[in-house]
Amino acid sequence: MIMLSIDAERLLGRIRELGQIGRGSDGRLVRLAATDADKAGRDALVSWLRTAGLEVAVDRIGNIFGIWRTADNADEPPVLLGSHIDTVINAGIYDGCYGVLSGLEVIETLKAAGHAPARPIAVAAFTNEEGVRYAPDMMGSLVYAGGLPVEEALATVGSDETTLGAELERIGYKGSKEPGFLKPHAYVELHIEQGPVLEREGVPIGAVENLQGISWQRVTIKGEANHAGTTPMTMRRDAGHAAARVVTFLRDRARNANTPTVATVGCMSFEPNAINVIPSQATFTVDLRDPDEQRLQVEEAALAAYLKELAADEEVTISVERLARFEPVTFDRKIVELVEDAARRRGLASKRMTSGAGHDAQMIARIAPSAMIFVPSIGGISHNPREHTPDASAVAGANILLEVVSRLAAE
Amino acid sequence: MIMLSIDAERLLGRIRELGQIGRGSDGRLVRLAATDADKAGRDALVSWLRTAGLEVAVDRIGNIFGIWRTADNADEPPVLLGSHIDTVINAGIYDGCYGVLSGLEVIETLKAAGHAPARPIAVAAFTNEEGVRYAPDMMGSLVYAGGLPVEEALATVGSDETTLGAELERIGYKGSKEPGFLKPHAYVELHIEQGPVLEREGVPIGAVENLQGISWQRVTIKGEANHAGTTPMTMRRDAGHAAARVVTFLRDRARNANTPTVATVGCMSFEPNAINVIPSQATFTVDLRDPDEQRLQVEEAALAAYLKELAADEEVTISVERLARFEPVTFDRKIVELVEDAARRRGLASKRMTSGAGHDAQMIARIAPSAMIFVPSIGGISHNPREHTPDASAVAGANILLEVVSRLAAE
Repeated sequence: MIMLSIDAERLLGRIRELGQIGRGSDGRLVRLAATDADKAGRDALVSWLRTAGLEVAVDRIGNIFGIWRTADNADEPPVLLGSHIDTVINAGIYDGCYGVLSGLEVIETLKAAGHAPARPIAVAAFTNEEGVRYAPDMMGSLVYAGGLPVEEALATVGSDETTLGAELERIGYKGSKEPGFLKPHAYVELHIEQGPVLEREGVPIGAVENLQGISWQRVTIKGEANHAGTTPMTMRRDAGHAAARVVTFLRDRARNANTPTVATVGCMSFEPNAINVIPSQATFTVDLRDPDEQRLQVEEAALAAYLKELAADEEVTISVERLARFEPVTFDRKIVELVEDAARRRGLASKRMTSGAGHDAQMIARIAPSAMIFVPSIGGISHNPREHTPDASAVAGANILLEVVSRLAAE
Repeated sequence: MIMLSIDAERLLGRIRELGQIGRGSDGRLVRLAATDADKAGRDALVSWLRTAGLEVAVDRIGNIFGIWRTADNADEPPVLLGSHIDTVINAGIYDGCYGVLSGLEVIETLKAAGHAPARPIAVAAFTNEEGVRYAPDMMGSLVYAGGLPVEEALATVGSDETTLGAELERIGYKGSKEPGFLKPHAYVELHIEQGPVLEREGVPIGAVENLQGISWQRVTIKGEANHAGTTPMTMRRDAGHAAARVVTFLRDRARNANTPTVATVGCMSFEPNAINVIPSQATFTVDLRDPDEQRLQVEEAALAAYLKELAADEEVTISVERLARFEPVTFDRKIVELVEDAARRRGLASKRMTSGAGHDAQMIARIAPSAMIFVPSIGGISHNPREHTPDASAVAGANILLEVVSRLAAE
């Protein structure tokens, strides 16, 4: 049996072409949602969708769909593939775009091979996944899944004081379809891992079975500013030292736990931040993630208990502000098994894994059986011009998507 | 025997009056060196010196001297008292000014009592002790002691791009005397403690026997920025965590040592300082102080060894920049004993102690037997509008100075 394969050159060529759209004079790739650069990217995608003979639809939040239906399957719920084509500032070329263009590639390949799927196959590019210009992130898929009213999303004011609705209208991508108009039979998102695991373990395919829950908190510790030379060690209420103890506590706990829990202190600032003054205040963020909601709650409680103990021990006052909280998402077991099976059939090793980052798939999972496929990111680097996935890996991932979609569309 | 005492009201009144000079419309006290506000403070001081019948002299770096000499003692080296009247931004009213005005008060008291000292007594206000506008701090006394050529000091460019020499000229305090023109027989500086020890221990007089050595370093740790969600704990090179380990190492070591060593991390910054990115870089300062040079070197070596071990352990690179280094100063034992003796005679408890802060006395100690007298700072607070020493404590300190100076001037 000769296996069907996608057109590697076409896929890789489009990834590179889209990756040139939105580069400034400094060479940096920036296609923030609903900007002129995003419009240019969208125009390129729509032109490819049309050339492939797909029906193009845009919904009210600007999500773009390329739909392949036949007379025989038009009434069936479609298999939906997708991701996003908006980017962060100074982005790489793979994040999101790889999934959208692979979805298109898979449809074109099946179409050209004379395939007759039992249900439509569609590819989606969701609006504003990155959330750099407008918060929250994953906005288009959230609205599509009914998690945020479209009017509210369109009224969002961005970091540049613009309004998303007006900007979508301006660039011609405020569509008329009601978000959710296509109710998917299943949703599959192919994406770069954005982490180091697949590369380090030498595994080409990640069968993503779940997505971590995220807990973001901002901690403020208040002590007492005092002269660094004249205040004995025993008479200090050093907010900076107390903050350092939290950093090592979180790291030691997560590292010793032998669980997938990750804990990160990414932001830190001291006040008054003077070389010869004991810090009166330290403010820092805590990013806790775990694929298990129960365990995430245990980690949050452990931090809270430690902060209480620390406040007494260091004679400091500690306040905590919750910045964000998402429960973990469990993907559809059957689709995950299809991914593993497809990898086996193509002779590729696969690994069940957890997505540490947020993706549109976690929103669409609310309305349809969903899963994700990961391919390696060199060095785990993403949101960075050095973001890279080798051509062979990108092609292998798209072929796995092809295999999985064929099976889902045959159901 | 009735003991001579200073005029408490006159001293306290002048401290308060000088403390009103240089307040902005926001009520904050700011008399940075060689500004208009500094000129106003200097003018007030000079007027008090003249009213007291003292000979006023200003040297080339702007140090002001009020000299009391008689026909009988004019050829003898003088006893010098002093401190500074420049301030930090948003200062209290005692730091420096208390010592200068007490010096004047002591001279006036002795003069009025018909005292006939065996040698002249002079009071000095040294230029730019705080070092806020022009670096380094303690500049006037450093130049006076021959530690910095006067031309070099006058050429110093300030944080506001002005030149000290031009600014001194502008405010009329670029004098003609050569720094060092008065070679002191002894130097005594009365100062607020700026630390919490005297108040907490209920001791009114500090007999300052030495001054800590200071080691300032800036440490930069470089790790690797990575996604906070997708990078397992074991695959991280977290510069922020490594920095936190240094903070707790320094604190634990200094606290457990049972020595006067103090260690402070006052400045800290993370890069890229984003909630969901593992810090690629952490930069922080280390302020180490110890009255014993040998021990200070041991502490520096211990930090260096720890950083080396840490770099290997956390797979980070660490670089260290030396920002400042002063060896400890040992004050004159005989003057310290005079201070203790004076306290005993006035029925006051005293405590031998170390100055944790830098003072003009450490510079003048290079050219003359020197020591300091401390009085309590409420809450240890200084460089702050809440800086406070109770009236009775301020008066008691000035009377101890009076006693010590009488003895030194009789030698």
